[in-house]
Amino acid sequence: MNAVIVRAATDADDEAVWRILQPIIVAGESYALPRDMSRTNALAYWRGPGHEVFVAERDGVVLGTYYIRANSEGGGAHVANCAYMTAPDATGQGIARKMCVHSLERAKARGFRAMQFNFVVASNERAVKLWQMFRFEIVGRVPEAFDHPKLGPVDALVMYRKL
Amino acid sequence: MNAVIVRAATDADDEAVWRILQPIIVAGESYALPRDMSRTNALAYWRGPGHEVFVAERDGVVLGTYYIRANSEGGGAHVANCAYMTAPDATGQGIARKMCVHSLERAKARGFRAMQFNFVVASNERAVKLWQMFRFEIVGRVPEAFDHPKLGPVDALVMYRKL
Repeated sequence: MNAVIVRAATDADDEAVWRILQPIIVAGESYALPRDMSRTNALAYWRGPGHEVFVAERDGVVLGTYYIRANSEGGGAHVANCAYMTAPDATGQGIARKMCVHSLERAKARGFRAMQFNFVVASNERAVKLWQMFRFEIVGRVPEAFDHPKLGPVDALVMYRKL
Repeated sequence: MNAVIVRAATDADDEAVWRILQPIIVAGESYALPRDMSRTNALAYWRGPGHEVFVAERDGVVLGTYYIRANSEGGGAHVANCAYMTAPDATGQGIARKMCVHSLERAKARGFRAMQFNFVVASNERAVKLWQMFRFEIVGRVPEAFDHPKLGPVDALVMYRKL
């Protein structure tokens, strides 16, 4: 199996990115986005103003995507925020891990001093464990902030680490 | 002294709203916004998509403004978010309190089940105490998430209450 590489996304990746976003948005179990979000709106969100978007690919096949941005402006502009999605049929292959490593390096290179995730659905244990392995700490827990389509109300976590 | 009333903002309030926003944004001590934000950008932010904006006025003079919006979409759309600003020369007159009462009622009327503040600068003790009086709890604390122009790095609080 060849190595996974992470590179900047281009317009030519839109279809591949959408194929990753769509099933995750429709499932509605990990992102606070409308489950019926259109392709146009989903790509406009993912590639929104101030978002730097990357894709993870192996043998030319895009298996994951993430964006990095400043979490806030002004006095909060030194904290990065990222969101990651891995193609459902590529989970467990280290794609998210690879993207996380890349994003931490990218955040440092851009001069960010910390990284924060604002809304980690607590039932998304795979993600929580992965971020904890990367030394993110749970610094907040918002009770029942997320309506999970199968589990009902679940907490949302705020996770954070210095860079 | 006549009563403070809270009403929906209109385009005609833009100048009054900007006069409240500007000194607070320039001071840079309580909002994570660029301190040199233009009038256009500040009003576009305050009156952004999905924001319902209100003003508090007494004798026809606007002394405060707030917006309410859904904090997230999809599975997070049941949580409201608000931001409040009081004219610096009108602090201590119960304007923020009046707006908070109004916003909680408005949030309930719109069917929100909780309200969350994502970024309360910890050094803004007046605000923290007021929200606590309104039964908001500190559910998160992000270390040094805010560069305060006088105090340096200070924590940002996530505050929350059910409705």
